[in-house]
Amino acid sequence: MVGTPQPAGCLLALEGIDGCGKSTQAELLLGWLRERRPDGKVELLREPGGTPLGEDVRELLLRGAERGPMTEMLLYMASRAELYEQRVLPALARGELVLLDRSYYSTAAYQGAALDQDEDTILELARLVTRGREIDKVVLLDIDPRQAAVRMAGEADRIESRGLAYFERVTAAYRAFAEAAPERFLVVDASEQPDKVFAAICAGLSDVV
Amino acid sequence: MVGTPQPAGCLLALEGIDGCGKSTQAELLLGWLRERRPDGKVELLREPGGTPLGEDVRELLLRGAERGPMTEMLLYMASRAELYEQRVLPALARGELVLLDRSYYSTAAYQGAALDQDEDTILELARLVTRGREIDKVVLLDIDPRQAAVRMAGEADRIESRGLAYFERVTAAYRAFAEAAPERFLVVDASEQPDKVFAAICAGLSDVV
Repeated sequence: MVGTPQPAGCLLALEGIDGCGKSTQAELLLGWLRERRPDGKVELLREPGGTPLGEDVRELLLRGAERGPMTEMLLYMASRAELYEQRVLPALARGELVLLDRSYYSTAAYQGAALDQDEDTILELARLVTRGREIDKVVLLDIDPRQAAVRMAGEADRIESRGLAYFERVTAAYRAFAEAAPERFLVVDASEQPDKVFAAICAGLSDVV
Repeated sequence: MVGTPQPAGCLLALEGIDGCGKSTQAELLLGWLRERRPDGKVELLREPGGTPLGEDVRELLLRGAERGPMTEMLLYMASRAELYEQRVLPALARGELVLLDRSYYSTAAYQGAALDQDEDTILELARLVTRGREIDKVVLLDIDPRQAAVRMAGEADRIESRGLAYFERVTAAYRAFAEAAPERFLVVDASEQPDKVFAAICAGLSDVV
């Protein structure tokens, strides 16, 4: 309708190491967000993935043979470029809310800090790939890697199987990102029960969405 | 043997639009280079490709659905990162000669100039991916895109089928790169017969290899 104000687009991301409970919280959060938004339009998109090309790249990343850290980082960026171009930026332009299951902070933590690649270079490339669209709020599900490891069940993919020392470096990287940009990060203690974690997320997001 | 001087590694690249005769010249050049090198060790590697991951990415690039220019550029870079890490840099460190069938100049011309992406950004990313190892000599097979189109036979892949206007922009980009770095480029008139083109390449490379 002419004259009806468009709701502002909003970009959220869920971050955390494997086993932090991210998938559970993503589903809970999706329902809560859909109730809160006047248009009910909320998209949950996962990285890598979310487009046909992105799903092909995801398969290469999670199932293929081991490869160099820079190659891995660039494959994540390729999937991300396609996701932003095809899904994220158009949805935001329509004033919708997009919830990302992982973001460029995952790439910076998993492929940067933890594999000895320069994080600033990765974040700079991310700015190019995302056309400079920053995430409005990053929810970091913070957990001790040993506790997260206990939660992991079933067969691990190529990255999940990298071991405790690796996930300790990833965790340290996440915490450093949050400390460097406290206004953008909502750090939630993910060692608690799921309902308590979810309540903390909602409380932290209530003035954003 | 201790004290035996290592031959210096040398990195060459063949560049040109589809239909310029690059594959024919690559095979001829490979034989000539193998005769000239004291150790006979010359590797011909193609971009994208040259590694298991690179060949998977090549398949995505040349056969898959259309996708954004930035995604395409990043997939080429991912393949390149793996090729340099696994094949190019180790071979050069052993003092061998590597002949590339396409290089980052293809990415800058095909995905940069011709698809309205910033070429300098692409070349800067290439410096990161190649660990700053520049190509010692780029042989540019220069040809009018209309003549090249006549030579193309059989089914075109996704990029080959982009049409004359596209290849005119690619050609202009190649020529601009050569003008900007005349010491690194050997520009050969590829409209001639293959044996004459080959003779010009050998003459131009004789003081390099």
